Amino acid sequence: MEVELKELLSDLHSLKKSISDPSHLALIEKMHLHAENIATLEKSGTTRRSKVKDMSAEVVDSNPYSRLMALQRMGIVNNYERIREFSVAIVGIGGVGSVAAEMLTRCGIGRLLLYDYDKVELANMNRLFFRPEQVGMTKTDAAVQTLSEINPDVVLESYTLNITTVEGFDTFMSSLTNKSFQPTKSGSGVDLILSCVDNYEARMVVNQACNELNQTWMESGVSEDAVSGHIQLLIPGETACFACVPPLVVASGIDERTLKREGVCAASLPTTMGVVAGLLVQNTLKYLLKFGQVSRYLGYNALKDYFPTMEMKPNSQCSNTACLERQKEYILAKPTRDAAAKAKADIEALSPAENSVHADNEWNISVVDDEEMDGSDVKISGALPEGIVHELPVADEYPKPPVTETVGPADDLEELRRQLEALNAD
Amino acid sequence: MEVELKELLSDLHSLKKSISDPSHLALIEKMHLHAENIATLEKSGTTRRSKVKDMSAEVVDSNPYSRLMALQRMGIVNNYERIREFSVAIVGIGGVGSVAAEMLTRCGIGRLLLYDYDKVELANMNRLFFRPEQVGMTKTDAAVQTLSEINPDVVLESYTLNITTVEGFDTFMSSLTNKSFQPTKSGSGVDLILSCVDNYEARMVVNQACNELNQTWMESGVSEDAVSGHIQLLIPGETACFACVPPLVVASGIDERTLKREGVCAASLPTTMGVVAGLLVQNTLKYLLKFGQVSRYLGYNALKDYFPTMEMKPNSQCSNTACLERQKEYILAKPTRDAAAKAKADIEALSPAENSVHADNEWNISVVDDEEMDGSDVKISGALPEGIVHELPVADEYPKPPVTETVGPADDLEELRRQLEALNAD
Repeated sequence: MEVELKELLSDLHSLKKSISDPSHLALIEKMHLHAENIATLEKSGTTRRSKVKDMSAEVVDSNPYSRLMALQRMGIVNNYERIREFSVAIVGIGGVGSVAAEMLTRCGIGRLLLYDYDKVELANMNRLFFRPEQVGMTKTDAAVQTLSEINPDVVLESYTLNITTVEGFDTFMSSLTNKSFQPTKSGSGVDLILSCVDNYEARMVVNQACNELNQTWMESGVSEDAVSGHIQLLIPGETACFACVPPLVVASGIDERTLKREGVCAASLPTTMGVVAGLLVQNTLKYLLKFGQVSRYLGYNALKDYFPTMEMKPNSQCSNTACLERQKEYILAKPTRDAAAKAKADIEALSPAENSVHADNEWNISVVDDEEMDGSDVKISGALPEGIVHELPVADEYPKPPVTETVGPADDLEELRRQLEALNAD
Repeated sequence: MEVELKELLSDLHSLKKSISDPSHLALIEKMHLHAENIATLEKSGTTRRSKVKDMSAEVVDSNPYSRLMALQRMGIVNNYERIREFSVAIVGIGGVGSVAAEMLTRCGIGRLLLYDYDKVELANMNRLFFRPEQVGMTKTDAAVQTLSEINPDVVLESYTLNITTVEGFDTFMSSLTNKSFQPTKSGSGVDLILSCVDNYEARMVVNQACNELNQTWMESGVSEDAVSGHIQLLIPGETACFACVPPLVVASGIDERTLKREGVCAASLPTTMGVVAGLLVQNTLKYLLKFGQVSRYLGYNALKDYFPTMEMKPNSQCSNTACLERQKEYILAKPTRDAAAKAKADIEALSPAENSVHADNEWNISVVDDEEMDGSDVKISGALPEGIVHELPVADEYPKPPVTETVGPADDLEELRRQLEALNAD
């Protein structure tokens, strides 16, 4: 619109110069005023907040970060401003991914990489984020439009592609390994990947990429009946990967046969998706900024307001070869981890009170905290925790049966050797 | 802008009529084209989705309700379209209230009444919903602007006022009793009130209004350290009112002394507020559309991903006289409730399988479901459930001490009489 207005104003200018009739000139003057008013109105409609160089903790209405920096003063986070150094990739900008992207944008995350190939439809309006005037735009374009207006400090990268295609996967991998944002960063170019896709195939692709890159990621899901969901943390080699165990979901108590009928359109609710996005980004903030306990698996049963948790060890029979490599590396690194843990325990023993809450513990999970909990935090070993079921009822659909005997913590060198042999036997 | 454009076009028209010079006419022709392009661009920028007469379940991209109506086909909700008959009042359009309003709007709620007196500031941008270009607008105006664009089917009423002032309270009360939306509705003019305010005084005012009107409401809160929150259902006479028990919150494990320092700006996170808003509106949908279990109290500890639940009975020593009246009415209505419960149990006994999930149970809470749970659903009787603490550490600040002996369920006529006498003794 800016171009059209500029042209109109310049035409008015030329006309004014070449006309002498006073009544005509008055009319031109009037038109000039209208055009200028339009320009002012147009400009006020697109007022954007300017970029902010440093995150300030100053308590003034005009500071977009005051309520976040207050987390430091309140002792929740040690260094909030570190958030600007982190890159998070979000795969799938739907009901969960778009809200997760908005939350991270409002938190002032350094860089967001957004992946989707779909377009915004009116049928998406029952979930948060997209607006009816964005119908027809790609979800990535629409997201960048909204997010850049909300917080211009965030570096946004948009990838309109399908990661399950060969070409899409190549671009996905190269975007993840690009380190231009933080050249000194170890590992890949991103700190975390959030999987917010709605199908098994795309999750397996994210799983493959993360196992290959040794990249920590979080998976999220919402059931087709819209009343349950979950988030899961996956650390290659340390936790089960997505191929280690058939996907686990939270049971809603609704007859599975109702859900699996052919051609049934999945239901969705802004509430369930908002809660799952909130739990996912909360877990992301805890992971990146090192506060609280990072959940390994957290389910949400909306009908009963029940939130099962559990942990899943890797499967030494996993069908994913990159996963088996990561498992070997993890087992071999055990002596180093043990030494580091012992050194930290010694330091903590010297000043227990000071370190009890903000200890620089990789997951901030302590044995005492676990015991304080309600006992629902169980390790998977044979039976599933109450309320959690396999996503698909037929086990035959998977190359391997569900893992019942999982790889437990290695107690000594003998045990380590046994585990490595089990992995190599494949 | 529309007015300015119209004037400009009419001026161009008059000028064209009175001018004969061909080069001038060509220039006017050109300006006319630019002005028309501006009009087109302006119109496309504000494209709104048109109103929808009936909620359709048709699975097409252009149907904004297809994913909600699917809840019916999947057996979650009996009659989703009933949502259009309901009126929900939201008091406080901040970090929780604004997101709750957006969720209900996207769900196609019939009517929303919004109450706030505050203006949008850049300091609010770390929470969802408001955008930087709305800074300076009242929260109610900004909310109506955004919500009416998202879903024009929702009837929006905006009240820019402070309910804790005498004048504000009067308008609040008269808006709640206005029945023009559903003239045949019993009780007040709204089906539910959601309290999303951030202070004790405003909660006590909502409590007073609801006790006077015998109006069911839900309370919500987020801690000042941003890492815990809760929702609570309050039914006058049946559950504890806000004055019955000193406010209970979820402990975050952070030293209270850090929080209570003078002049400290409260922290907030879009994640915690998004989760609390999601749980609140989920509970609202379950309450209005009668599915699942409506939670009486649900807490959220973000550091541990722990979600305590409990129930609170009314306090026969409550300082609120309207609450005592409602308690008396509730006790007197016990024989009627018992007869209705028995009649329903008899019907269910005839077809147990059919009614097990979608029984027309007021709260959809069954004894079997409770036993299936993890046992965290406790009735408050003396000690608080783990993880829940009193909001303010000093009990002396309240007119009455915390209730330890609560009014239990009346077992017989003798017990009923005893309870009524206890209430009348005040």
